[in-house]
Amino acid sequence: MASWIHILRFTAAEDGKAYYAKGDSTLPQIGAKVAGFTTLALLETDSVTEGVKTIKEILAPVEPGLPIVCIGLNYANHATEAKLTVPQKPPMWYKPAEALANPGVIPVPKVAQDHFFDFEGEFTIVTSKAAKDVSVKDAPSYILGYTIGNDLTARHFQKPDFSGGQFTYAKAFDKFAPLGPVLVSPAAFGELGKNTIKTTINGRVVQDSPLDLIWGPAELVSFLSQGRTLPAGTAIMTGTPAGVGWFQEPQYSLKDGDVVEISISGIGTLRNTMKFE
Amino acid sequence: MASWIHILRFTAAEDGKAYYAKGDSTLPQIGAKVAGFTTLALLETDSVTEGVKTIKEILAPVEPGLPIVCIGLNYANHATEAKLTVPQKPPMWYKPAEALANPGVIPVPKVAQDHFFDFEGEFTIVTSKAAKDVSVKDAPSYILGYTIGNDLTARHFQKPDFSGGQFTYAKAFDKFAPLGPVLVSPAAFGELGKNTIKTTINGRVVQDSPLDLIWGPAELVSFLSQGRTLPAGTAIMTGTPAGVGWFQEPQYSLKDGDVVEISISGIGTLRNTMKFE
Repeated sequence: MASWIHILRFTAAEDGKAYYAKGDSTLPQIGAKVAGFTTLALLETDSVTEGVKTIKEILAPVEPGLPIVCIGLNYANHATEAKLTVPQKPPMWYKPAEALANPGVIPVPKVAQDHFFDFEGEFTIVTSKAAKDVSVKDAPSYILGYTIGNDLTARHFQKPDFSGGQFTYAKAFDKFAPLGPVLVSPAAFGELGKNTIKTTINGRVVQDSPLDLIWGPAELVSFLSQGRTLPAGTAIMTGTPAGVGWFQEPQYSLKDGDVVEISISGIGTLRNTMKFE
Repeated sequence: MASWIHILRFTAAEDGKAYYAKGDSTLPQIGAKVAGFTTLALLETDSVTEGVKTIKEILAPVEPGLPIVCIGLNYANHATEAKLTVPQKPPMWYKPAEALANPGVIPVPKVAQDHFFDFEGEFTIVTSKAAKDVSVKDAPSYILGYTIGNDLTARHFQKPDFSGGQFTYAKAFDKFAPLGPVLVSPAAFGELGKNTIKTTINGRVVQDSPLDLIWGPAELVSFLSQGRTLPAGTAIMTGTPAGVGWFQEPQYSLKDGDVVEISISGIGTLRNTMKFE
C-alpha cells in the first residue's frame, strides 16, 4: 500500500464534490490544495487522482451508506459508573446510515432535546476490506485506520422501561454519529494503551481516559465477522469511557449551542456544535 | 397509483437479472411470463417496463441494501412466554443488509448451529417513501405493502450474559432475514386482526396466532420516523408471536435440512430450508 499517515474526506472549493486526500505527518487544513481521489479503493495507487483540489469543508472520513457499528461496555471505568456487568461478548448494535454526520453543526430534533441529549466520545475503527470469519490474528490486516466518533444518545430512550433494553432507538436519530476529522493509519497511531481520549463541553473536561479497551480493534473485527460479512469501510465505534452526562453529578444534558470536542492523542479533535431545532 | 395487489421480485430466465412484477388477485408463479420493471419507483406507471420476462426464481420483494428494522415484544402471547414486560415504546434494532435472504435455502454458519439456531415468523411492512416525523394518522400513506419475514436467531447470543442484553448480534448473521414471497397491498390485505400467522417446521405447527400486534403498522412507521429518516423501501419485521423453539417444551433448535414455513393469510407462505455449512 502506498505510504500515508492521514486520510481526509472533504468537499472541494472548485466543484463542491467530495474527495479523499492522503497526507503524511502534516495534516492538510481547510484551504490547502491536495491531490483528490474519489474512492478509498484508489488509496493503494499513487498514480490515480482527480487533480488538485482545495479543501473547503472537512467531512466524516468514511463513505456515506456503509454500516456504522456501535460497541458498548468496552471500558471498565464506564461499566463501573453504569453499574453494569461486562458480558462474555461485546454488546453491539447498528446506527442507521442517516446517522452519519461531519465535524461541525449537529441539528438536534425536539424529541431528542426532551429526552436527555447526551454525548459519548469514542475511538473508532474503519475497515479496509470485506471481513468474514476473520481470526483475531488476521484482523489487523482488515483495519484501514482510526478516527474519532461521538455516539450521540437521547438517554431516556435507552432506559429499559422505554426501550425494553435495546439501545438502538436512543442512538439512531439523524446525524447522531459524527465522525472525524481524519483517519490515521494504525502503524502511525501505535499502541492504543499509550494514547488517551478526552471529551470537553465548552472547554470543561468531562471524559479523560487511556484507551484501555476491554476488547481491542483486532478482537472486535474478528467478533463482528463471525458467520457474517463486515463490509469494507465499516465504521466501528468502540464504546465510551466514564464521564457521560447521564452519570455526572449533577447530571448534564447537552444544551443548545454546546460545543463538544473529543480529542484522541495521535488523531486530533472531533468538534461538533449542537443546534437545537 | 396504478392498481396492483401483489408485487414480486424475481430473476428472469432470459438474462438472470432481477426485476419486479405486479399482479392482480392471481399471483404469478415460477415459469410465468410477466411485464418486468427494475425499480419500485416505476410502480406508479403502467407504461414503463423492461419487456416480458419469465420468472425463474422468486426473490425477497425488497431492494438489497435498504434497512431491515426488527421490532420485539409486539405480541402479548410472546411477552408472556418470554416472561418480559412490554415497555412504553417498541423495542427495535437493525439487521445488516447482508442478512437479507430470499425464499429457499439458508446457509447456516457453524457458529450459529452451535448457539441454538431458532426461527421467528413475522408480519413485515415495507415502506413506500422516505418518512420523517410522520404522525400515526399520516403513516398509512407511507406503507407500500406487507410481506412475511423470518427473524432467524442464534439464541445463545441473545442472552444477557453473552450480549449485555443487546439482541442485534444474535440476529445479524449473513442470510438471517429471509423475506417473501410477495408484497401484498394494504388495501387488499385488509384488517390485521382478521388475519393469522402460522409457522411450521417440517409440517409441525409451532406458531399459530392472530395478527394482534401491540403496535400496528401505522404506530411503528410513525415511531421509527421521529427525529430520523426512514428510507423508502425499509422492511420492518414486526415481531413474533408465541412458539419459538427456545420456549417450546422441550426446546427445539433448528436442525440441518429443516423446512420452516411461515404462512400469513392473505399473503402466502415463506418457505426456507436450513442448510448447515
